[in-house]
Amino acid sequence: MKVDENYVRMKIEELSCIGRDDKGVLSRLAYSPSFWKSVHWLEKLMKEAGLTVTIDGVGNVIGSMPGEEGYGDIILGSHIDTVLNAGSFDGAVGVIAAVETARALRREKKRLRHPLKIIAFAEEEGLVISGLFGSRAYIGKIEAYSQDSQIASEIGIDFNQIRNSATDVSKIQCYLELHIEQGGVLEKNEKDIGIVTAIVGYERYKITIHGKENHAGTTPMEFRDDALVKAAKMILDLPQKAVEIDKEMVCTVGVIKAYPGACNTVPGKVIMEVDMRAVEESSIEKLRKYMYSYYCEKDMEIQQELSEPPARMNKKIQEKIEAACKKQGYSYHYMPSGAAHDTTAMSLVTSCGMIFIPSIGGISHSPKECTAYEDVNKGTQILMDTLLLLDNFGQ
Amino acid sequence: MKVDENYVRMKIEELSCIGRDDKGVLSRLAYSPSFWKSVHWLEKLMKEAGLTVTIDGVGNVIGSMPGEEGYGDIILGSHIDTVLNAGSFDGAVGVIAAVETARALRREKKRLRHPLKIIAFAEEEGLVISGLFGSRAYIGKIEAYSQDSQIASEIGIDFNQIRNSATDVSKIQCYLELHIEQGGVLEKNEKDIGIVTAIVGYERYKITIHGKENHAGTTPMEFRDDALVKAAKMILDLPQKAVEIDKEMVCTVGVIKAYPGACNTVPGKVIMEVDMRAVEESSIEKLRKYMYSYYCEKDMEIQQELSEPPARMNKKIQEKIEAACKKQGYSYHYMPSGAAHDTTAMSLVTSCGMIFIPSIGGISHSPKECTAYEDVNKGTQILMDTLLLLDNFGQ
Repeated sequence: MKVDENYVRMKIEELSCIGRDDKGVLSRLAYSPSFWKSVHWLEKLMKEAGLTVTIDGVGNVIGSMPGEEGYGDIILGSHIDTVLNAGSFDGAVGVIAAVETARALRREKKRLRHPLKIIAFAEEEGLVISGLFGSRAYIGKIEAYSQDSQIASEIGIDFNQIRNSATDVSKIQCYLELHIEQGGVLEKNEKDIGIVTAIVGYERYKITIHGKENHAGTTPMEFRDDALVKAAKMILDLPQKAVEIDKEMVCTVGVIKAYPGACNTVPGKVIMEVDMRAVEESSIEKLRKYMYSYYCEKDMEIQQELSEPPARMNKKIQEKIEAACKKQGYSYHYMPSGAAHDTTAMSLVTSCGMIFIPSIGGISHSPKECTAYEDVNKGTQILMDTLLLLDNFGQ
Repeated sequence: MKVDENYVRMKIEELSCIGRDDKGVLSRLAYSPSFWKSVHWLEKLMKEAGLTVTIDGVGNVIGSMPGEEGYGDIILGSHIDTVLNAGSFDGAVGVIAAVETARALRREKKRLRHPLKIIAFAEEEGLVISGLFGSRAYIGKIEAYSQDSQIASEIGIDFNQIRNSATDVSKIQCYLELHIEQGGVLEKNEKDIGIVTAIVGYERYKITIHGKENHAGTTPMEFRDDALVKAAKMILDLPQKAVEIDKEMVCTVGVIKAYPGACNTVPGKVIMEVDMRAVEESSIEKLRKYMYSYYCEKDMEIQQELSEPPARMNKKIQEKIEAACKKQGYSYHYMPSGAAHDTTAMSLVTSCGMIFIPSIGGISHSPKECTAYEDVNKGTQILMDTLLLLDNFGQ
């Protein structure tokens, strides 16, 4: 079964016009007017593909195709909300490719044994309520009276709507998502398809380093306790240690501020944010311990801001994706995902797989975000083929 | 001749109440209402000390005592303007101690051969127009149509006033200033008096480091070009190299900003400010060359923001200060000044000397700025004694 390449390209282009302003800037924040416009545009698309469509209380768009009695749902999903000043591919590719699989099944008059659900989850990006809000609501993980439900209520989504969006997770067989890589690994390795092994876990820390604020002219070097010099040691040391611990691990200092922040004053305080991610929880633990044992002295505060465990992809689904690649003659590469996706939430309740396609220059969350349509087509084909393999053989 | 310790302390305390608000915060910015109040307060003080007072067009307060025919002016000076949220000692000590020397001469009916001028220069701190504005106007170094004269004109000081403030510098014999150290060298070395050898020269640079902005999760460490990691190397390397070049040299990065400044983004750009100071111009030149040769690559911009040559103090005046210390049995320490003073300007036209007294904890430009009155008294005594030595022996 071959996917309709032309359709996928046209619909990605069409969707990318919803939420684009006069200056050409694309922003389709969840729950904005342009988001709702895209929801109804997608509803129409799904209906044309023969799917039964519901829009749940949190704005998830769910297209359903029945299967045989006794089989669990296979879900293909991603999202159609975007960041501010976004590209056209993040999320959109996975949703439209999934709709194309439904169209292809209909064209070829092929019936799946498993019921199929195609879902565009709302608020994946997390700029309005918080990340993966739609998928977390779908699996019933948004608590009443939580910060998330409170913010949701402020923008007109009350807790009844959230509760009613929760599905019966016992009916789910598995979840599969096609997504752009948002990194440069596939491009650098010249591979067509990324088979995701796990979505990395991560921890984020706010580190305050104290020194002694002093006049930059009158304080000899040997009397100084320069907070920025101490911070610079960590900025160099932590990423090196990360690679020593686990060569696939990443560690980043993206935010730094020196106080008082005057060119003629030795910094007396620095606040910076450290982000560490790895597939193996033990790697993160080692780096965290390193950070604490070497640096937690009287002149430092370390505060954990975020902590998420890694999400492992199902081995059998990974094998099906590989088999699909082999059948098509596409090259493939096993790799972790350094970013979170709706799959992260779905992995809490079911077996998951993720298919990556290359991002040109590794760029994402930017108008420069781009994936060659040749690669979009390959990804769509692998999504289709993997779906058929999952339906035929179970997993 | 012994100075009146009580007077100096009382007048420093009195002056520190002018410009102090209800919350106890002292700010006496040049040309503010409280600054003018302090000008007239000082005018009265000088008159009581028997001096003839003039207030020139830029707000310098000049108290004069005549000398014999054919002798050049000895000037004792400092300033009474302050920074925001200031301490009570910076500037004030030098002015009030100088007034006390005039009072002591009168008490003891001692006449100097040299005419004596005691000057409180306006706008030393540079928060209103620019640093050393009053002293630079006094020596005729403010140009018409310059940025300084333009800003001055905006706050009501026209260029005629500036021009009329310029003195006949050929009549100046020498300039001597007592000031708090504003660093911790005297305290750490347990010395009473600092004999300044030179005011350091300095250069200031704005450095822009380019890297590649990337997703902090999806970009493997080996593909990164992290601008903050490159900046951290410089933050550690430059101060180390500075000390290698010249152990009295100082180098500081006090300002840093990473772009885009998000915890989940590898910094694509860093802008930071580097300040380097030394007594020897050759030391600054070496560090500047090091910075350029190691770091000026395609991904970096280095922009000079400021450059000031060092100001050397007159050797004979330094010897007189030492002789005064020996006579009183005070310990002393030869040292550079890491900060600029009115002496910096005066050194462009005459022989200069500077006397430092200890700052507790090396703190200045802060409400915590403090000098023990015992040390203020020693400084005043050395100012007095040095003045007498300069008058007796010329230099």
